[in-house]
Amino acid sequence: MPMKPVLFNNTVLRDGHQSLAATRMTTEQMLPAAPTLDALGFGALETWGGATIDSCLRFLKENPFTRLDRLKAAAPKTPQMMLLRGQNLVQYTSFPDDVVEAFVRCTAAHGLDVFRIFDALNDARNLRTPIRAVKAAGRHAQGAICYTTSPVHTPERLAAFADELVELGVDSICIKDMAGLIPPRIAYDLVKAIKARHALPVVLHSHDTAGLAGASYYAAIEAGVDTVETSIAPFANGTGQPDTVRMLAMLAGNPRAPHFPIDPLAALRTHFEQVAKELAAFMSPVNDRVDSDALCYQVPGGMLSNFRNQLKEMKMEARFAEVMAEVPVVRAALGWIPLVTPTSQIVGTQAMLNVKFGRWANLAQNTIDVALGRYGRTPGPVDAELRALAAKKSGQEPVTVRPADLLSPRLPALKKELADKGLPVTDDLAVLFAMFPRETEALLKPAPAVAPAPAAAKPAEPVPAAAVTVPTTVR
Amino acid sequence: MPMKPVLFNNTVLRDGHQSLAATRMTTEQMLPAAPTLDALGFGALETWGGATIDSCLRFLKENPFTRLDRLKAAAPKTPQMMLLRGQNLVQYTSFPDDVVEAFVRCTAAHGLDVFRIFDALNDARNLRTPIRAVKAAGRHAQGAICYTTSPVHTPERLAAFADELVELGVDSICIKDMAGLIPPRIAYDLVKAIKARHALPVVLHSHDTAGLAGASYYAAIEAGVDTVETSIAPFANGTGQPDTVRMLAMLAGNPRAPHFPIDPLAALRTHFEQVAKELAAFMSPVNDRVDSDALCYQVPGGMLSNFRNQLKEMKMEARFAEVMAEVPVVRAALGWIPLVTPTSQIVGTQAMLNVKFGRWANLAQNTIDVALGRYGRTPGPVDAELRALAAKKSGQEPVTVRPADLLSPRLPALKKELADKGLPVTDDLAVLFAMFPRETEALLKPAPAVAPAPAAAKPAEPVPAAAVTVPTTVR
Ligand SMILES: [Co+2]
Ligand SMILES: [Co+2]
Repeated sequence: MPMKPVLFNNTVLRDGHQSLAATRMTTEQMLPAAPTLDALGFGALETWGGATIDSCLRFLKENPFTRLDRLKAAAPKTPQMMLLRGQNLVQYTSFPDDVVEAFVRCTAAHGLDVFRIFDALNDARNLRTPIRAVKAAGRHAQGAICYTTSPVHTPERLAAFADELVELGVDSICIKDMAGLIPPRIAYDLVKAIKARHALPVVLHSHDTAGLAGASYYAAIEAGVDTVETSIAPFANGTGQPDTVRMLAMLAGNPRAPHFPIDPLAALRTHFEQVAKELAAFMSPVNDRVDSDALCYQVPGGMLSNFRNQLKEMKMEARFAEVMAEVPVVRAALGWIPLVTPTSQIVGTQAMLNVKFGRWANLAQNTIDVALGRYGRTPGPVDAELRALAAKKSGQEPVTVRPADLLSPRLPALKKELADKGLPVTDDLAVLFAMFPRETEALLKPAPAVAPAPAAAKPAEPVPAAAVTVPTTVR
Repeated sequence: MPMKPVLFNNTVLRDGHQSLAATRMTTEQMLPAAPTLDALGFGALETWGGATIDSCLRFLKENPFTRLDRLKAAAPKTPQMMLLRGQNLVQYTSFPDDVVEAFVRCTAAHGLDVFRIFDALNDARNLRTPIRAVKAAGRHAQGAICYTTSPVHTPERLAAFADELVELGVDSICIKDMAGLIPPRIAYDLVKAIKARHALPVVLHSHDTAGLAGASYYAAIEAGVDTVETSIAPFANGTGQPDTVRMLAMLAGNPRAPHFPIDPLAALRTHFEQVAKELAAFMSPVNDRVDSDALCYQVPGGMLSNFRNQLKEMKMEARFAEVMAEVPVVRAALGWIPLVTPTSQIVGTQAMLNVKFGRWANLAQNTIDVALGRYGRTPGPVDAELRALAAKKSGQEPVTVRPADLLSPRLPALKKELADKGLPVTDDLAVLFAMFPRETEALLKPAPAVAPAPAAAKPAEPVPAAAVTVPTTVR
């Protein structure tokens, strides 16, 4: 049979700058590139979700739905994709089903096409509601398998998780290698195993943090993967996705090589080099560099950069190696949870606390929640002593039900709260407010000129001039 | 049949720092790592040749043969390898057969095991004398095929060049992808083609400049390549070879994965991180970064860094893109010569001259020599107009014989010259003196304390403190 060219999804507008520039790219910096990106024939453009919504509200003072509207208008042809953290939406804790459903409904109404949905624990129960909501909105639901390595993450078990996703009705499957850990042979075997079980399209998403992504994409392409994800330099390679030109060169002579004109890709690179200059304060050569140390830490690309910043803020940068060595200890105790948002932050924070105050002397609330099953079923069992300690410290019992089953509907209360504050009462705002109450309120009520310093403890972030686009109306 | 583990050669002591630190690593910086490197089971340690001899003499004030002695003493188990530019030795022009033979004899006498020999034009006539000399010394002669892309460099023609190498009596064959241009599919096909013709071991040497090396190594391993070459971070990846830990991770689950203990590799990394701090003045994040631009320029890893420095010295850094665009023009006119030392320098310099003074307005002597066949047969024909211009400007006729056939024996004259200068008359010194007369003399006669500024036009290079080891006796 004739070989089908592999599709490239492009990640420069989401994971590219999330991994290499702390998610600081503004809509204004994106828009000039959108028509070119739209015309090139990418399978999808990842433009939304992940940390971008947080960043829009917290740092860039942008309404994230307005960003989506503008990107849809500027790139109407290519499907646009977001990364959705299952029941956590784009935050770090579970939301009730009615909020999850409203979020998906609003996002679909703003034109988003493909919802890539994952759960950090690969607990399928946390994907059920968002997948149903995406299907109800007539959009494409992509279920993601979080790839990680641990004694309990065998390739067989990962492939079997695809069956659970298919049962939930997904339209395609993503192998989400958020830490850039998947070696070519495992990528090959996993793609083969999933393709043998299911006729759905399979996507491989990886990061070049440890320099494996190019070879693993290549092996996955040999195994018949439908799509791999690339970005545009300089928001590519290193802790991000391999760049598109590089992947094209890598496929020279390969019967599945796609056809892309080089000149527009060069023009995109020129544009994003300019953007990178504007975002220089958020970029670091450390993230550009391939570093096999990540193979020991098993820390996702996006996290490595944030982590270094966090440690610096806590004046703990000298203890980087120590904290990193504590990461697998915390992971093992927490049932070998994969390191992906939000669990990467949970494990990272607890590792810092363990190093700073002594192991388990100070338990973060999120650690307690994971230990008590409040995020879902962990891949392996939680350490019994840690679970007991978490129960004792919190006065709460472990749970085994789907976490969201413990949550009551919240949408009416959220709307009432908006109304009480004299803010517009819309579903859009209600779901943003559910996740980022202070930031959403601040977006709608810009601080007066002589306002006191904001409550946030950290110093003001430098915001590139072009980034400050306080919208006057919010839909 | 059971799968044979792939061998790794280690390049950190030669190509690693040549590509990432302008060849400035000193013997003192190497020695602490040598026993660990020796114990790990690498197929060979590349420790000599390439630009290291030039750098020893010019910048580090070291006797290169003394370096070899010390490295052999510190790492006696693993074969040590050098890179030899065929009839050019480790310089940029042809030397008479007697000098080539003496060089090989001396080097073998100092214990070097594997001579990797290439000719920039893949003109087998330029490999004949050095291969014969290596065999006469009872050492391993490895013939290299310079990989490049051009209308005249088809995979078939490259594979056929292996036949010529075998006829010359080589013990193994290296695919030398000095610019990091080989895509996985071509690497696979080329290895298969050579292995199908010959029973000799095949090595793939590449650079990760454009982010292809990992995947191409992987594909070559699938095709049955015997050896690939890795380095140790931070003198690895980017414009250098993939690092060893990364390649091990990449081979996880692969039946040809070799076995290496991780702890000594981590210790090596710690050591070389310290060395990198000492060499910081010669390193740049630009060289760490994977950059697919090299796919357009087709410039070798080691050259990209030198080139940026050269342009800066000439105050032409703003014209980098222009000069790079001129490179393929010069290459085409010079019969599509591959870009490898010395032809990379020749093409680069002529490209700079073309940009600075107008195309062909100013011909470098080396350009004239290539155009007139004085380096050997170019892969494609030289542009007729350029050849005529070169003949006119130089008053010389094109040649078709083996270049060294035009050269008379020089060893006796070199020795007389040494004697006349009151220097020790040895073969070692004669061959060094043939290639680097001023530097060799300076090494033997350190400048007096109140000497006038040296004749060299460029400002003194900063030499790390540990680098200054002026030997008091020279053998
Ligand atoms: Co990602
Ligand atoms: Co090389």
